[in-house]
Amino acid sequence: MTGDLSPFFEPSKVAIIGATSTPGKAGFELVKNILANGYGGECYPVNPKGGEVLGLSLYPSISSLPNGVELAVVIVPAGASPQVLRECAAKGIRHIVLLAGGFAEYDEAGAELQQEVERIIRENELRVLGPNTSGHISTPSHFTSAFFPLGKIRGGKISYVAQTGNFATHTMKYILTSECFGVARVIGIGNKIDIDESDALEYLAGDEATSAVLMYLESIKRPRRFLEIAREVTRNKPVIILKSASTEAGKQAAVAHTAAMAAEDRIVDGLLRQAGIVRITDYTQLILLGKALSMVPLPRGNRVSFLAPSGALLVVLSDLSTRLGLEVADLEPETQQALQAISPPYLRMRNPVDIWGAALVKGIEAGYRAGMEAVLNDPNIDAVIPILMLSRDTGMPSVEFIIELARKYPHKPIFVTYSGEEQCMRECRAILEPAGIPTFMHVEQPFEVFSTLARCRKVMERPQ
Amino acid sequence: MTGDLSPFFEPSKVAIIGATSTPGKAGFELVKNILANGYGGECYPVNPKGGEVLGLSLYPSISSLPNGVELAVVIVPAGASPQVLRECAAKGIRHIVLLAGGFAEYDEAGAELQQEVERIIRENELRVLGPNTSGHISTPSHFTSAFFPLGKIRGGKISYVAQTGNFATHTMKYILTSECFGVARVIGIGNKIDIDESDALEYLAGDEATSAVLMYLESIKRPRRFLEIAREVTRNKPVIILKSASTEAGKQAAVAHTAAMAAEDRIVDGLLRQAGIVRITDYTQLILLGKALSMVPLPRGNRVSFLAPSGALLVVLSDLSTRLGLEVADLEPETQQALQAISPPYLRMRNPVDIWGAALVKGIEAGYRAGMEAVLNDPNIDAVIPILMLSRDTGMPSVEFIIELARKYPHKPIFVTYSGEEQCMRECRAILEPAGIPTFMHVEQPFEVFSTLARCRKVMERPQ
Repeated sequence: MTGDLSPFFEPSKVAIIGATSTPGKAGFELVKNILANGYGGECYPVNPKGGEVLGLSLYPSISSLPNGVELAVVIVPAGASPQVLRECAAKGIRHIVLLAGGFAEYDEAGAELQQEVERIIRENELRVLGPNTSGHISTPSHFTSAFFPLGKIRGGKISYVAQTGNFATHTMKYILTSECFGVARVIGIGNKIDIDESDALEYLAGDEATSAVLMYLESIKRPRRFLEIAREVTRNKPVIILKSASTEAGKQAAVAHTAAMAAEDRIVDGLLRQAGIVRITDYTQLILLGKALSMVPLPRGNRVSFLAPSGALLVVLSDLSTRLGLEVADLEPETQQALQAISPPYLRMRNPVDIWGAALVKGIEAGYRAGMEAVLNDPNIDAVIPILMLSRDTGMPSVEFIIELARKYPHKPIFVTYSGEEQCMRECRAILEPAGIPTFMHVEQPFEVFSTLARCRKVMERPQ
Repeated sequence: MTGDLSPFFEPSKVAIIGATSTPGKAGFELVKNILANGYGGECYPVNPKGGEVLGLSLYPSISSLPNGVELAVVIVPAGASPQVLRECAAKGIRHIVLLAGGFAEYDEAGAELQQEVERIIRENELRVLGPNTSGHISTPSHFTSAFFPLGKIRGGKISYVAQTGNFATHTMKYILTSECFGVARVIGIGNKIDIDESDALEYLAGDEATSAVLMYLESIKRPRRFLEIAREVTRNKPVIILKSASTEAGKQAAVAHTAAMAAEDRIVDGLLRQAGIVRITDYTQLILLGKALSMVPLPRGNRVSFLAPSGALLVVLSDLSTRLGLEVADLEPETQQALQAISPPYLRMRNPVDIWGAALVKGIEAGYRAGMEAVLNDPNIDAVIPILMLSRDTGMPSVEFIIELARKYPHKPIFVTYSGEEQCMRECRAILEPAGIPTFMHVEQPFEVFSTLARCRKVMERPQ
């Protein structure tokens, strides 16, 4: 169980064992995904029935394949796996994705089958991803073993490791259809018969295409190894984890899901903390953080400034900032003066920034712009969150100025959020997100995201 | 400072002091809102310049108004307020909404002005809402004093009391344009020179049009009175509060916002608990809870069942349920059998319900339907949350069956949430919400909402 995993992510010759010409079947959708992503290597589909799939001739057997295949993606029923693995080994194919379920997560016979597969892996020194996985994704090589109809997968600089199929199915579909960011690698580790979260993290640690790692885990197979790898990588790249099965109810659900026996949660928590991994609890954050990490630099600290023409929102979000460990920092005298200059004299301008007066005097757009520039320019502030209050009836600001400000202050993250008409919010999002400004539909979300990123920065800079 | 507030909410003759024929000005938009809402009483706009506004003749003065005016909505600059109040009193108008800002929240002169107005109120036994408010809304009488362009305001059965203008401006605009629910009353208490949260709550306690009260407060003016009223009403109606300024940063922001001096938060917390008021912290929840309270009955307890074809989501949401104080309850043997009947035999069906197998065998729609019906039918379950995993490419379920199930089990709330393509989620929402099924775009939200409603039920049934 040693060796480099790059054949999974940069394969030049791939066999698809169990490909089929029947649309809708996994063995068809998988080939379709590979072609849709413009994979540049050789792709050899295998099916004893022969014929062709999407213009590619089907090879009748593994033994009939050309030599030099680096990776086999196997989409046959669980029971056929031992035979297929042996044939792959005989052909010199040492990297294999086993997609099928029906192993240890299934029943006792499946557990025995899994043990048999484990033996074959050991005896032949194979590297296997899965079984019971929805596949993996590697956009730098335009390759995927996902069989869920995904189409072209947008490239990006963050990677997901997941003990769930969601990140190569519905959650990826959400990201591709409803967000603007993409992924570098996605690794669905499934039953982790061989490749586990430690291997995956080790690979991503050295992966130049990956700048941050997001993980969903229900169990940690080799805690000591995981800790060792994480300790190193978290000094260079943020590693964020949703480790679930943290409660009794969650543990019971996890047994039903992946047969994972979750450890005592306090121990897990201590381990993750030691490893420099930042832990989160909400599934939605795995997506929102993916967006933020794709678009903004890691903030230098936890000092926030936020702006709105609503005093109440400023109060509520000050409370939230404190609860999240963010500092609503005092501004430099020059910043206060700059804010005072755009406001009616009776308002004593401070952080958070009430741009109500400025908007009345200068107009809504000029108010936001001047306010944001003042706090972006302040050395006491690490990130800026404008809360855009939007209604068609009171005039929509053009939000291009936010893109300009982001370019002018490239080291300070800007997170945009909204209040008001949903249609207006969506219009702003459609302008801002393609330009690399992350936006959030609920006012709490950018604060939660910033708080997590600030924790990543803090662990990155922890003493040796 | 006694007397019934119903002239604010059921006025038959209203004067608008400071109405104007200039579109875009508050004194114009206010009249426009009143007409757009189909107010059935008499509306008398007043402006010394004369002329007309939107077909209504402008009265030159308060003294020239017909007799019997019950409510005056005053939209003149702060400095003119004392004179206007005296003239209203002379004319026998005893209920007044003072919209203008520029009082205690403004500067020292404003604070003196506010004291003068307080004297006039006392001397003339007036009832005044405001100043520094964006107005109020009363849909049962199709009336509003809001000057933000809102158009027709959808009626509903919940009411908001808010120490912020947002609920008669952008937040209301969001509700009206992006949600399906409406409001009974909205009371923007502003500087609460006379009518405060205690008066507002007392009115809503006896208001048949209001079935639940949501409040945003930065301070509580008469804690003892508030406690007294709340103790009673919370046995009959849910009262949910976002009391902000709970942290040092929040308190500082509140001073800037409403000059409110927030009390020690632990004391506030204890007070609210004694009063049976359920406290929340997130602004977004004020909207999501409004939706839920508008659509579903209050659950009978905290026992949740949820369904998804994703084991990982079931694990994460089991953890979340526990953190939120919800019980992922065991199912009756008959329920388990009913679930087993729709699933492949190898899956041991339990709560939460993994409908992956059922969806494979019976199809996605039949899987959700049979699974939901089984748990809705279980006496151990108080609310059901299906997580719809949607992708156009794998076939969209018709969600009409959820409406049928909600009708068949009217006492158990169903909260719908999603994973997958945003466009698919929106299509489902457009079918479900007009039929009274609340839906939530993020998987955590229905759990947070259900948890708060379960707390409301618990305090409602607390011992005397």
